[in-house]
Amino acid sequence: MEQRNIDFFKETVEEMLEKQDLEALRLYLEELHPYEIGALLDELEESKQLVILSLTLPEAAAEALEHLDFDDQYRLLDHLDEESASKIIAAMGRDAIADLLMAIHPNKAQEIMAMIPREYLESIKFLMSYPEDSAGGIMSLDYIQARQYWTIERVIEHFRKVGRKQSVTNYIYIVDAVGKLVGVLSLKELLLNEPKTKIEDVMHTNIITVLATADQEEAAKLMSQYDLMILPVVNEQGRLVGVITADDIMDVIEEEDTEDIHRLGGSQPLDLPYLESTLTTLFSKRIGWLVVLFATQAVTSNILKHYEGVLSSVVALTFFMPLLAGVGGNSGTQASSLIIRGLALGEITVQDIAVILFKELRVSALIGIVMGTIGYFFAWTVSGSTGVAAVVAVTVTVVLIVSSTIGAILPIVGRAFRLDPAVFSAPLITTVVDITSLMVYFNIAIKLLKLGG
Amino acid sequence: MEQRNIDFFKETVEEMLEKQDLEALRLYLEELHPYEIGALLDELEESKQLVILSLTLPEAAAEALEHLDFDDQYRLLDHLDEESASKIIAAMGRDAIADLLMAIHPNKAQEIMAMIPREYLESIKFLMSYPEDSAGGIMSLDYIQARQYWTIERVIEHFRKVGRKQSVTNYIYIVDAVGKLVGVLSLKELLLNEPKTKIEDVMHTNIITVLATADQEEAAKLMSQYDLMILPVVNEQGRLVGVITADDIMDVIEEEDTEDIHRLGGSQPLDLPYLESTLTTLFSKRIGWLVVLFATQAVTSNILKHYEGVLSSVVALTFFMPLLAGVGGNSGTQASSLIIRGLALGEITVQDIAVILFKELRVSALIGIVMGTIGYFFAWTVSGSTGVAAVVAVTVTVVLIVSSTIGAILPIVGRAFRLDPAVFSAPLITTVVDITSLMVYFNIAIKLLKLGG
Repeated sequence: MEQRNIDFFKETVEEMLEKQDLEALRLYLEELHPYEIGALLDELEESKQLVILSLTLPEAAAEALEHLDFDDQYRLLDHLDEESASKIIAAMGRDAIADLLMAIHPNKAQEIMAMIPREYLESIKFLMSYPEDSAGGIMSLDYIQARQYWTIERVIEHFRKVGRKQSVTNYIYIVDAVGKLVGVLSLKELLLNEPKTKIEDVMHTNIITVLATADQEEAAKLMSQYDLMILPVVNEQGRLVGVITADDIMDVIEEEDTEDIHRLGGSQPLDLPYLESTLTTLFSKRIGWLVVLFATQAVTSNILKHYEGVLSSVVALTFFMPLLAGVGGNSGTQASSLIIRGLALGEITVQDIAVILFKELRVSALIGIVMGTIGYFFAWTVSGSTGVAAVVAVTVTVVLIVSSTIGAILPIVGRAFRLDPAVFSAPLITTVVDITSLMVYFNIAIKLLKLGG
Repeated sequence: MEQRNIDFFKETVEEMLEKQDLEALRLYLEELHPYEIGALLDELEESKQLVILSLTLPEAAAEALEHLDFDDQYRLLDHLDEESASKIIAAMGRDAIADLLMAIHPNKAQEIMAMIPREYLESIKFLMSYPEDSAGGIMSLDYIQARQYWTIERVIEHFRKVGRKQSVTNYIYIVDAVGKLVGVLSLKELLLNEPKTKIEDVMHTNIITVLATADQEEAAKLMSQYDLMILPVVNEQGRLVGVITADDIMDVIEEEDTEDIHRLGGSQPLDLPYLESTLTTLFSKRIGWLVVLFATQAVTSNILKHYEGVLSSVVALTFFMPLLAGVGGNSGTQASSLIIRGLALGEITVQDIAVILFKELRVSALIGIVMGTIGYFFAWTVSGSTGVAAVVAVTVTVVLIVSSTIGAILPIVGRAFRLDPAVFSAPLITTVVDITSLMVYFNIAIKLLKLGG
């Protein structure tokens, strides 16, 4: 199919539904990828959604559902006829079912439970025992195991038996009598080795694994460092309990980066996309920080009140307050965002603090001198006073150095205290820098202009 | 091996080098993963690096090198003895060699070229013809092809012949006489089907592909949407030219998100990690925006000068200027970071602008009322004047609404004009909002306090 475009799919499907040409529709849906069917369902009203789901092959329908919100997944499974629903559920990955059950209301979960094949129930309960952002929470159970004393031949035979049902089949995991992971063999090696070879003679024993209780970020880091497509998950006893695939990890990386970007913007991370978040969610995720920052920034008012004398004697000083605060905030934000990302990627550690401090001092001194010069001429043209111009110039330089340093160091100090560096958001840095720059400004003014504070 | 820790590896390796126990070292290195050997090399001085590389199996050494900077890759290959160097190069992926050649100085590239196996040269030149951030720039050539009229049996036979040399083996790509991609078959299906089956009867013909000239972000989006582990890359004629694997895409995602975060912080993205960037790089990546923003923010000075009369008659108004600018900047940054991330993930499109505008108006009105109330009582306690307090309260509310709207809408407008939304960084939003909030403040002051502008 040439044109892979959801709107185009939608038109075609709705035409067929018009004509009640269900057979054509069934064939058409076979040509679509589960993701596309999912996106399509998102665009249609329920009556049409149900027809489409019942016409789609259970495997594809199951995958398509995973692209919808959990509430929609529940609603559709609930409103579908018993038979289609149970077929789809039986085709869903056990990890996907577990995620659904954990996301929806317990009563609704009960209804779904009733449709789950008996043999699944236990393993699903097991999956649900791990927090959703842990390695165990994102792992799949649909992998293939073998024993080390088996021959290649026997593994292939075993593979032919169970392989069809499993989704993760690029590796065979070799476990001992108690289920401890002792080796791994790729499907490629399975094909390339002689049928009579014993697995233990060819398997890789030196395996990168992650604890089921570890944070999903830990799993993501391992997979991107070691360039892994699949990461086996073990429990404290080293027993193999699941596998994480690269396509799941891509979502984790996006998710974690989104959280960081939201925090850097000074709001608590949204769990849903912006458009799907309710007013009250958006309100509650944003008001908190704003109030905290307001309270912090309130200090500036008291500082200014304290320098009321200076202000009224040289009103011109007021002209440059926003400019100076701006300069400081901007350079502080620059520095912090560079450092925070470095920390997130593990490129920067707390031990580097001295190196970074020294580096920032030099960079910001360079920037400070350039900006200070610009500042001098600007302030001079606006205020007509070389005195005020000098005050502005010196302040710009000092503020740039101070703010870059604060912006760079705060996140590292925060990390040292186990705080998420991303809480040192642009707004927070700006606020801290605002206060400092005003103090600097007025003290320099008093010195240079010989004013009585 | 229990303890997977680079420092621990380093100690052990250096001990063995002390004792000149090279055989033990060789065996020890076999236990390490290429990534770990790479990290280890990063920690050692050249003499030791060279010993380690010459003791490591070429395949592992080749992979380990890929974890180092291009300049280090070149230096080591250049200083190694001819034989080890050529062995390692022969074991490197052609895409890795191409990346190296493109990154280093042409003269150095010539030296490396000399060591590349003849049969590689042409395909490497081909890879080098694609920009490094295009799909073609990150694709690998080490995949397996078959023809649609072959039987499963014949493909397996072919696989046994060529499979060992190839790195991407989870799928067999089926091409026609002119190399056009006509189908794909997973290794799993190869094993599960009857030996006599014709490929064309079992292969999948409905394949997601990406153009070699497309941006790597396009490839990343496809792979995470469709949950693909491997994405075939085709040229304009639909000929298969390479494949992209999920582990490469993970790096792309990290890379793109890093660029966004740097831009959001108001600096041009760094190409190297912060710690490896030189002073001059950091300076030049940061000064540009600071000057632009300075120039923009300079407007505030003229505004203030224009309201000099108001300022000198009611100095108390000055007290709250930083606070108001802060409030506006913070809410603007919040809104913009939420929207920018939404745009980056494709959750928000330009068409949503009206919905978002309406949503922001309501959210910010809610927030504005709360903050306005807080602002009133605060301003009243500081200034002792209910008039000034009223001005502050009203301004806070207005500024919050205006700034959230600007913060939310600017990135979408930018996207509409094909600008990277991340250019609408916190600093830029803050600056724009600064100016607006001052105007609002003074006009409200003049109205409420009946002052002559």
